[in-house]
Amino acid sequence: MKRIAIIGMGLIGTSLGMALRAADDTVSPLGKLVINGYDNHRPHSTAARGRLGIDRPCTSIHEAVHDAHIVVVATPVLAIHTILAELAPMLAAGTLVTDVASTKTDVCTWAKTLLPAHVDFIGGHPMAGRETSGPNAADPELFKGAIYCLTPDTTARQDALDTADALVKTIGARPYYIDPEEHDAYVAGISHLPFLLSTALVETTSRSPAWKDMAMLAASGFRDMSRLAAGDVTMHRDICITNRTALIRWINDTIAFLLDIREHLEHNDAAHIEEMLRHAQQVRTEWMERT
Amino acid sequence: MKRIAIIGMGLIGTSLGMALRAADDTVSPLGKLVINGYDNHRPHSTAARGRLGIDRPCTSIHEAVHDAHIVVVATPVLAIHTILAELAPMLAAGTLVTDVASTKTDVCTWAKTLLPAHVDFIGGHPMAGRETSGPNAADPELFKGAIYCLTPDTTARQDALDTADALVKTIGARPYYIDPEEHDAYVAGISHLPFLLSTALVETTSRSPAWKDMAMLAASGFRDMSRLAAGDVTMHRDICITNRTALIRWINDTIAFLLDIREHLEHNDAAHIEEMLRHAQQVRTEWMERT
Repeated sequence: MKRIAIIGMGLIGTSLGMALRAADDTVSPLGKLVINGYDNHRPHSTAARGRLGIDRPCTSIHEAVHDAHIVVVATPVLAIHTILAELAPMLAAGTLVTDVASTKTDVCTWAKTLLPAHVDFIGGHPMAGRETSGPNAADPELFKGAIYCLTPDTTARQDALDTADALVKTIGARPYYIDPEEHDAYVAGISHLPFLLSTALVETTSRSPAWKDMAMLAASGFRDMSRLAAGDVTMHRDICITNRTALIRWINDTIAFLLDIREHLEHNDAAHIEEMLRHAQQVRTEWMERT
Repeated sequence: MKRIAIIGMGLIGTSLGMALRAADDTVSPLGKLVINGYDNHRPHSTAARGRLGIDRPCTSIHEAVHDAHIVVVATPVLAIHTILAELAPMLAAGTLVTDVASTKTDVCTWAKTLLPAHVDFIGGHPMAGRETSGPNAADPELFKGAIYCLTPDTTARQDALDTADALVKTIGARPYYIDPEEHDAYVAGISHLPFLLSTALVETTSRSPAWKDMAMLAASGFRDMSRLAAGDVTMHRDICITNRTALIRWINDTIAFLLDIREHLEHNDAAHIEEMLRHAQQVRTEWMERT
């Protein structure tokens, strides 16, 4: 039997617990599980228990991680620093510590500095989410078929690697091994730039004096493009802060693209605009076919 | 019995025909309908007939609009100019001519110049669409509950106004009367800026040397934010050209917003970023509640 502690009973933490508890323990390489859950907002762990995301809601991190084989930190990125520092003296030798945060470079650096050498930290990031947050938005199917990034460093023990791999496969996701810096640069473009552009759309349009009338006309295009702007504020703020270097690069590229488009619009250059639209359409279609 | 001609059997033209033919003619204010369809790409009108979008596929505009009470031009914006010129000598007195294009200022000006005084032109724009195009993507439910902009000018006869209103209500949409210039400025923000930002996301990320690896990690956020970039190229090109002044204004506002964000990221200003994210989240939530 493996004891798992999940710290943070938000959308991802609770969904992870639900997915683990829903898995068939006779075939899962993790075998039988007992899952403790902790959230500094008590109603969240109660809700996670109600949704069958955990076996036992705990009232402290200490209680949750006692004797745990696996500890999953599922809080917003910036909170992970404090939690790792708090966890450090509590962990038994051989414990696997992992997280689910959207940026990995800072988290992996903190883990290396803060955690004792007798535990293994392997950073994790499931490429799945939704704009709703909290335990009541959780869904055990959230990770089905999704890529799950794992960022072990070269010192990670085989046993810990196997456990992390098994954890990911048990919830129906696909492990994808990647360097933390590379991960952060990539997701800045395909995940963080999207929520920033979604926010840009909402902020730019809603600041217009005509917003009330415009809002009446907004339809499915606006709905889809503004969805990410409804996402968890703390999570997005922490992503901006911990991944700002990569994000700034993508912002610069986007501004350069918009300036280019503006110039072609000013010159009424229909042929160029068509070519650009056709290229984007083709890239998007190819991407959809591959996923 | 009312004879309707639809010119252009794409997504919107075919969906419109399907919705009209699916309506109960014993309660519809338009009564019994016969619908002719024309498309310069012959297989499209055949497909529209197959999907029950029209009663009769025609081989020329002349054949389609012969004796028509209502003519709906459902082509990309730039093609409307040529079609109105071609239609002008064919129309009987009292015919209602309308269109479904995404921009209205140019179209209404062309109609005023090109069409004879004995017909009425009322511009139309259903606020509904999808990224797929052509008659096979058509859906009679596409307009259900959607806002349908109508831009009559002050010379429109009451009879024509009533017919346009009835047409919109028959397909389950809600008529929304608006000035063409105002329409174009508003939809530039809530409909055209979104597809341009969607295109910007796809172009910016896919030009990266790391795109192949990034594409592996891209998930639901990228999928939603790139959907509009897969839309009809000709339609989007024509929108860019006919609505470029309004679009340029929104591009400028977006660039200003991105520059502002970049500055706050450079200064690690978590409080400001959080405030901005919270505002966008609130605006989006309120918008969703109202729609």
